[in-house]
Amino acid sequence: MQTHTEHFESPLYLESGRILQPYDIVYETYGRLNEARDNIVIVCHALTGSHHAAGMYEGDAKPGWWDGLIGSGKAIDTDRFYVICTNVIGSCFGSTGPMSQNKYGEAYRYKFPVVTIKDMVKAQRILFDRLDIHRVHAIVGGSMGGMQALQFAIHYPSFANKIIAMATTFATQPWAIAFNKVAQEAILTDPAFKNGYYDPEDIRENGLSGMAVGRMAGHISFLSHYSMIEKFGREYKRNDGLYELFGKFQVESYLEYNGYNFTKWFDPLTYLYITKAINIFDLARGFDSLFHALVQIQADLHLISFREDMLFLPDEMRKIDEILKSQHYRHCHHFEVESHYGHDAFLVEIDKFDSYVREVLNG
Amino acid sequence: MQTHTEHFESPLYLESGRILQPYDIVYETYGRLNEARDNIVIVCHALTGSHHAAGMYEGDAKPGWWDGLIGSGKAIDTDRFYVICTNVIGSCFGSTGPMSQNKYGEAYRYKFPVVTIKDMVKAQRILFDRLDIHRVHAIVGGSMGGMQALQFAIHYPSFANKIIAMATTFATQPWAIAFNKVAQEAILTDPAFKNGYYDPEDIRENGLSGMAVGRMAGHISFLSHYSMIEKFGREYKRNDGLYELFGKFQVESYLEYNGYNFTKWFDPLTYLYITKAINIFDLARGFDSLFHALVQIQADLHLISFREDMLFLPDEMRKIDEILKSQHYRHCHHFEVESHYGHDAFLVEIDKFDSYVREVLNG
Repeated sequence: MQTHTEHFESPLYLESGRILQPYDIVYETYGRLNEARDNIVIVCHALTGSHHAAGMYEGDAKPGWWDGLIGSGKAIDTDRFYVICTNVIGSCFGSTGPMSQNKYGEAYRYKFPVVTIKDMVKAQRILFDRLDIHRVHAIVGGSMGGMQALQFAIHYPSFANKIIAMATTFATQPWAIAFNKVAQEAILTDPAFKNGYYDPEDIRENGLSGMAVGRMAGHISFLSHYSMIEKFGREYKRNDGLYELFGKFQVESYLEYNGYNFTKWFDPLTYLYITKAINIFDLARGFDSLFHALVQIQADLHLISFREDMLFLPDEMRKIDEILKSQHYRHCHHFEVESHYGHDAFLVEIDKFDSYVREVLNG
Repeated sequence: MQTHTEHFESPLYLESGRILQPYDIVYETYGRLNEARDNIVIVCHALTGSHHAAGMYEGDAKPGWWDGLIGSGKAIDTDRFYVICTNVIGSCFGSTGPMSQNKYGEAYRYKFPVVTIKDMVKAQRILFDRLDIHRVHAIVGGSMGGMQALQFAIHYPSFANKIIAMATTFATQPWAIAFNKVAQEAILTDPAFKNGYYDPEDIRENGLSGMAVGRMAGHISFLSHYSMIEKFGREYKRNDGLYELFGKFQVESYLEYNGYNFTKWFDPLTYLYITKAINIFDLARGFDSLFHALVQIQADLHLISFREDMLFLPDEMRKIDEILKSQHYRHCHHFEVESHYGHDAFLVEIDKFDSYVREVLNG
């Protein structure tokens, strides 16, 4: 595991017409690039993820977010593949984002331009160019990472041999936008957010209840009815009276813990910008239709959906598959995973799809 | 349509062991009681509903919340039936609730006891006793109204000939509790809520963004993926740029409008108390099991569920039906309505079940 930062002085022309300049991209690598340079696997992260996809930093309690999938002998086998994971632009883990300093030495805050999934992918493509990487074995991602994988497939059709996109969609639907809206509104209306002019240290120390509330709404969308019943049922937290107004069910305690904890490690303005990027994600933009976008694809495309994903429904993946099948495109495959877990299955039920990923990568 | 208030000096013994004394109950009636006193239909309201179920008050823009179902010639035909709808205790529309004055002339606020659905039903039963009503033709309710209807069926088995419970459950599941948690937390952390010591006038005038955010989360749970796609799609609000951080999709605009508007007509402490009552609703409480609760039922029981209800799943109604069928109880019927709308279908897609309700009431 190695972490690197690349600095770019040249302008990044964004989809909006705005320019980001200069900018940094931070990325992490696992395994070794072979001599033929044909063993590269790109991994793309989700909304609150980072380039730290696997392995453990010294002193950390938890490994990277896809450590169950990436490593020696695992599905994305680092004995065989050279894996690269890049922190997207707009994020808060090292790549340039709203709290990075602009050329006047101040944090951008609201002056940061809206970036899109396509912009995130373009920036990665520029990074790979600099690293002299012009073609890769595979691109793999879930949720917003899956959006990036699909966007790569459409805009750089010859860049990857294989695309694995899971728990994602062709365009964000209003149900998902609605959950993001709750989070955005909760952040914006919290006086401690100070209309975007908060002190980040202050928030890391004291939390930001608006972001906690918003994250709680997010966590609902990451689970499902049945995973909540399995995980929590109607269990009541010990020592809380049933008839106490503030007595808590286990599910409430879970949301509270995760909501408030989140404000210690994620930046609120970044949350606004990345959820915006997710909301306006639409593969068809710039094309006459989704059909015209999808027919650009040349890679071997693997869609993995999870039966009870409440955020991006299997139906949305099915739609991509159906359009490509209607065009007799033989290289599209849709694997529907039986799962009660909900959206987060792509992070926590790795055993349900890792052999599939392994086969695709080794096939 | 007539509105009445009854005052009770005797104590109301609550499930928690606490006592509410004195208390008021406000109710509304439609149609006329016949001589045989056998044409009474009780209607029970949902979380934010009131006794004003039908008809139009002078100067109002909208009629009561179930006006499409209740009225002359409608499914609950006021030419034939004498309809009574009671505002539940704990609510903010006239029956005693957390913002009512206690015996010291002050608003209860947090001193108000937690009330349960069973308490709400008990208070109604006491009201009906005073009105010399000891048996009714039917009890009809949706969502929290359906919970009341079921609770009536179990605790007062000989009180109603027919029970129609729709879009409801046997016990609130963690998914629904989670949505309520987001709302509760958003209210509690809003500084303008002043830890419960807000000025109600101030909130009605200036809104309460925490409650607005919470209500937005609620509205997600009232709809469904597909109803949102049909209602809003990915339509962007006119004049808002796609690449503007604060540009809005139609669905965002809908949530915002309904969220902020809500704070003008509903009380935040009441929201905490009523969602608490919903969260701790469990027909099995006080019995050895749900089975032992359900076998108390003697009425003709009609369950109406809505295919894409995301808040109370048809599965939950099915469970009641299955338990009763396993006991060869012949008077339980489950009608699953084909609907994309989601939970709110019981309020807005009346044409899909009104003929069923009409038949049950006339049968």
